[in-house]
Amino acid sequence: MRLPSLNFSRKLATAATKKQPFKVVEVGARDGLQNEKQIITAEDKIALINRLSKCGLKSIEATSFVSPKWVPQMADHQEVIKKIEKFPGVSYPVLVPNLAGLKNVLENGHAKEIAVFGAASDSFSMKNVNANVNDSLQKLQDVTKAALKEGLRVRGYVSCVIGCPYEGKIDSNVVAKVTDALLDAGCYEVSLGDTIGVGSAGSVTKLLKTILKTAPVDKLAVHFHDTYGQALANIVVAIEHGIRVADSSIAGLGGCPYAKGATGNVATEDLVYMLHDMGFETGVDLDNLVETSVWICSKMGRPNASRVATALHAKRVKG
Amino acid sequence: MRLPSLNFSRKLATAATKKQPFKVVEVGARDGLQNEKQIITAEDKIALINRLSKCGLKSIEATSFVSPKWVPQMADHQEVIKKIEKFPGVSYPVLVPNLAGLKNVLENGHAKEIAVFGAASDSFSMKNVNANVNDSLQKLQDVTKAALKEGLRVRGYVSCVIGCPYEGKIDSNVVAKVTDALLDAGCYEVSLGDTIGVGSAGSVTKLLKTILKTAPVDKLAVHFHDTYGQALANIVVAIEHGIRVADSSIAGLGGCPYAKGATGNVATEDLVYMLHDMGFETGVDLDNLVETSVWICSKMGRPNASRVATALHAKRVKG
Repeated sequence: MRLPSLNFSRKLATAATKKQPFKVVEVGARDGLQNEKQIITAEDKIALINRLSKCGLKSIEATSFVSPKWVPQMADHQEVIKKIEKFPGVSYPVLVPNLAGLKNVLENGHAKEIAVFGAASDSFSMKNVNANVNDSLQKLQDVTKAALKEGLRVRGYVSCVIGCPYEGKIDSNVVAKVTDALLDAGCYEVSLGDTIGVGSAGSVTKLLKTILKTAPVDKLAVHFHDTYGQALANIVVAIEHGIRVADSSIAGLGGCPYAKGATGNVATEDLVYMLHDMGFETGVDLDNLVETSVWICSKMGRPNASRVATALHAKRVKG
Repeated sequence: MRLPSLNFSRKLATAATKKQPFKVVEVGARDGLQNEKQIITAEDKIALINRLSKCGLKSIEATSFVSPKWVPQMADHQEVIKKIEKFPGVSYPVLVPNLAGLKNVLENGHAKEIAVFGAASDSFSMKNVNANVNDSLQKLQDVTKAALKEGLRVRGYVSCVIGCPYEGKIDSNVVAKVTDALLDAGCYEVSLGDTIGVGSAGSVTKLLKTILKTAPVDKLAVHFHDTYGQALANIVVAIEHGIRVADSSIAGLGGCPYAKGATGNVATEDLVYMLHDMGFETGVDLDNLVETSVWICSKMGRPNASRVATALHAKRVKG
């Protein structure tokens, strides 16, 4: 039996000593709530985002400038981005699907950052934005460049990076192509999304190896769903590859309406618990986060999908 | 920004090419059912174990030779170990708490392997077996040696390897001491149990670094609970350290009645899904496992704690 390499543990030990920063991108108020059946009030969304800011999160997706016809959950986007408290040093990106969305963002005037999204699957892209990968890439690059010209920061998303609900396995080279195109257009970071949560340690390793041939590691983030319970294990793999940004959703809110059987994003509490145990600095107050998590779940009358929130809350209640 | 090491991914790629074996130790019928409130019939337990054998699992904990006064869920241990089908090449260990338990195993005559357990926490050990770590170690070594003399194989467990519900953080050196004592006494393998599920990638890394200073990696297994959702991520860390055996429980059955707030073991389905994705050979038929999982949960009228079983079953039902 081959002796184990301690390379990984040495790295973690180093992280513990130096307190390396790790950026958690909170997507609960957008990706989360957008994919919950229940529609909550703008007031509650604003309260949620303000609480998340107070928890110490540095990047909090606020809303989506999409038509209420397609996404009724985000119909109040104008009000939400306007009324949330803007904490210094915290970004509040809003999702923008196209140039019309960008125009609305500019007219609204309260967002400093937008997020654009492309898919690595033609079928998914057609169903989601009614354009194939190549056509949608061109549009994304147009939106990105126009936003940059207006002084906005732009974050990119690639969805279906491992599998697609319609096409099955996705070619990592297509993911790399979309990622590179978004970076070329000027996105400061691209988040690799396993929209249907099918990825696990092996397929994520293969994906990252391909992506890292061309994309710089400090421009990448990962976005995992817990449909198959693999999200945290995948993030360990991403960390091992040098990635220091991950998306997550408080209480594991959300999912994806276009992806059959998809459950919510990895819970922010579960992720922060792990990152702190690894010695990373996130700036997040986990106790405050758990309180916020319990609060939003009780507001929504929904079970808490975060195991850390559930365990820590149970401990507190039992004393 | 430092470039990522691809050491980890190279290893995974190697695993994928060579189809390295990985042993999954199924503990649902013992550790799982022992810690569920509901008591199921011996007939159902036997059916469960037979189904698990047919799924291709090579080590299936069958029952526990403990007093029904303490563990009513295992009162039928004599009948269960006698009546289950013994598949060739499959081991069916039974848990034995002390010499009296071993005597009963020998009289029964149907078990070929026993499991003994020690804790790395004095308080936990006192509450669990009414002896501190040192006293319990002596007893464990006596039981192990006596069993070996009778031709039985012996597997060791250490519980509370990261944290204890009564003492908090556990000193890894105590875990190493208990592990080494069990190996010295003749256990063919020692399973490191994070009984209350508090461990995460950083603390598990530190623990394994300590343990591996003295214990050979091919004699170690890991046993994680999903209380904080960290189990699979921890197993990735263990794999990176060269460990190739992990305990898991079908449908995530179980928990620990002595550990406040502990939820079930990591689900076998979730583990096998990840191992196969990493290119490991487990011998397990995942589809059959999911069917068995759905069956036992419906028998028990209990929600399925495996995310893989839930997702794959939902897919099947929806078509």
